Amino acid sequence: MKFQHISGGVTAAKGFTAAGIHCGIKKSKKDLSLILSEVPAVAAGAYTKNRFQAAPVIVTKEHVSSGSARAIICNSGNANACTGEQGILDAKRMAELTAEVLNIKIDDVVVSSTGVIGEYLPMDAVETGIRDIAAKLSTQGGHDAAEAIMTTDLVSKETAYTLEVEGKTVTVGGMAKGSGMIHPNMATMLAFITTDICISPELLQKALTYTVERSYNLITVDGDTSTNDMVIVLANGASGNSIITEENEDYHWFVTVLQKVNTELSQMIVRDGEGATKFLEVTVKNAASFIDGKSLAMGILGSNLVKTAFFGEDANWGRIVSSMGQTDVEFFPERVDVFLGDLQVTQNGQGLRFDEEYAKKILQEKDIKITVDIKMGDESVTAWGADLSHNYVTINASYRS
Amino acid sequence: MKFQHISGGVTAAKGFTAAGIHCGIKKSKKDLSLILSEVPAVAAGAYTKNRFQAAPVIVTKEHVSSGSARAIICNSGNANACTGEQGILDAKRMAELTAEVLNIKIDDVVVSSTGVIGEYLPMDAVETGIRDIAAKLSTQGGHDAAEAIMTTDLVSKETAYTLEVEGKTVTVGGMAKGSGMIHPNMATMLAFITTDICISPELLQKALTYTVERSYNLITVDGDTSTNDMVIVLANGASGNSIITEENEDYHWFVTVLQKVNTELSQMIVRDGEGATKFLEVTVKNAASFIDGKSLAMGILGSNLVKTAFFGEDANWGRIVSSMGQTDVEFFPERVDVFLGDLQVTQNGQGLRFDEEYAKKILQEKDIKITVDIKMGDESVTAWGADLSHNYVTINASYRS
Repeated sequence: MKFQHISGGVTAAKGFTAAGIHCGIKKSKKDLSLILSEVPAVAAGAYTKNRFQAAPVIVTKEHVSSGSARAIICNSGNANACTGEQGILDAKRMAELTAEVLNIKIDDVVVSSTGVIGEYLPMDAVETGIRDIAAKLSTQGGHDAAEAIMTTDLVSKETAYTLEVEGKTVTVGGMAKGSGMIHPNMATMLAFITTDICISPELLQKALTYTVERSYNLITVDGDTSTNDMVIVLANGASGNSIITEENEDYHWFVTVLQKVNTELSQMIVRDGEGATKFLEVTVKNAASFIDGKSLAMGILGSNLVKTAFFGEDANWGRIVSSMGQTDVEFFPERVDVFLGDLQVTQNGQGLRFDEEYAKKILQEKDIKITVDIKMGDESVTAWGADLSHNYVTINASYRS
Repeated sequence: MKFQHISGGVTAAKGFTAAGIHCGIKKSKKDLSLILSEVPAVAAGAYTKNRFQAAPVIVTKEHVSSGSARAIICNSGNANACTGEQGILDAKRMAELTAEVLNIKIDDVVVSSTGVIGEYLPMDAVETGIRDIAAKLSTQGGHDAAEAIMTTDLVSKETAYTLEVEGKTVTVGGMAKGSGMIHPNMATMLAFITTDICISPELLQKALTYTVERSYNLITVDGDTSTNDMVIVLANGASGNSIITEENEDYHWFVTVLQKVNTELSQMIVRDGEGATKFLEVTVKNAASFIDGKSLAMGILGSNLVKTAFFGEDANWGRIVSSMGQTDVEFFPERVDVFLGDLQVTQNGQGLRFDEEYAKKILQEKDIKITVDIKMGDESVTAWGADLSHNYVTINASYRS
């Protein structure tokens, strides 16, 4: 095997240290996370498309646009979103102070926040925290860092892979947080990936964009996006491979491994989805294009009626086809086949008589595969989502108060 | 006042009779509805944009495309959707038999169905019903007709208005059904309007399209559309006004009244929304265009996080602004003001300190007005929706079984 799964997260790759501490934004849980590359690293980012972008997103975009970065400072408990000019000043101050204590350049610092919207950061706590956390950095600190970015997450999320490049071992590891696709009040989806591969900034950005589109952009918990979402990857070249500057075989293997890391982290987010009782995997087969398949898969997973039907363990294929019909994808209803697990329930747009007992058995599982064949082309797209439960309503009806 | 509200529904206008009976599709409730104009009427329609269109929608579109119709036959309990060739034959048979018993032309019959998806119509019951219902037609039959199109609706939905045109009294009345914007398994949103105004088919269609865009298309219960949605208006000229063929003052008054009828019916649908405990009215002020205002208002009302926050009576303005931010409308977050009732909670994109007690009082009401001022232009758009409650999940998790 060219690559393999290993334990660890953001400190799995050579030349990275991390730490996670409690600085006082939250009552007692860890709320400040730091990742550092011992040498300057190539950096790439993907950001929320929400028009309301939190202050740290604005600052980080500017810093990462140079294609390099060395540190990621991230707090949880406060999103520093909808905080106006003061928010920007606070995000810049986080970068400035991090740069100062690490003795690196300000624009080599990625700043990130997640938590309550519309409140100013308690900068006293944050500043003390940043001064304290630098001393805790270690190659064993990845797990603490992953815990320190959690908000409503029930579990921390980490994964890592190794890959052989020119006989050298390259490692790609990451951590993520996210539980609903959004809480604007407890924002949301963050992922930080570190790798010791040596690669050009252009190809790192290309690899990130490609794999984000096929991972975090193929999951949905409640259909919303956040003001604070970001995915950042740092590549410090510590593995010693010669720099990858073209889309050669090594590049493609790196993309494969980065895809695995991002897909696993994104699936962990769905599994930790607010109130989720089911993990739904929708595959749209034979779509005319990736974008068509994605729209249909996300349309199915985004429908409240589909989601409640799966919560109710109801083989309601009518809701699946109808949710497809309201996307703007061109297809022919009279060609559509639908399968729940290996049970075909719809053929050429019409319902089949099926064994309700067997369907019930499939629907009682926690993991459910839904396959839709639209017979329009040869693209196959898989996306992931959760059901909509009473508990989702409970969690979100009482979040802020 | 140029126009006024009156009691009644589809038989309020001169020259219309209607009836509603039980024919045997449902166990015991009324399930077959008929409306007849005593003379040929001008007709216009608006239909679901879902790619899966039920057989009656396909047949009705063809019949109404001529610009005339005289009768509307509608069953509830079975949607005749995802039923393939047999479904088309059954819908055509409904039209044929209705034409036969009423002694009118087949293509003057509007056919409509609402109910379970993917099952064939029980045509024996339907055929017997169509033969029976013709004898029950009366000018008092509007309410029975409105009851016979209900599915999960808790209440029947009717309204009517009169308008003076050339000193003559013109009446516009209508009935509707709908409880979720969709159940693909219990489809969905139907509205039938009758009027005795004399108007050209082109202007009737124009008036319908305009008012549907500003009524049924501005409501959402769960964001889904159905395979069976249709709005049909018949205008039989019985009031005796000279035919309206241009967009004169009379036309504009007619549009005003038709808008009132459609807006009231659509609001009744939202109020009867599945599990709804709140009636949310969102006004987007100072949008650059109608379409921008609509997208933002529907974006707010379509967000599960906004909906659950209102269910929880939580003044969570962060979710409101974030749901706006994820639409594709161009606006500047730093200009956005948000009001709950008369309480301003956000100014220029930033949260204000507000009286939480007063906010709680506003949020405890059943009817809640949300106003968003984006300061981009001078269009104002109001849309309506419901909260997302535990009961919504319960209803939809256990619908089919």
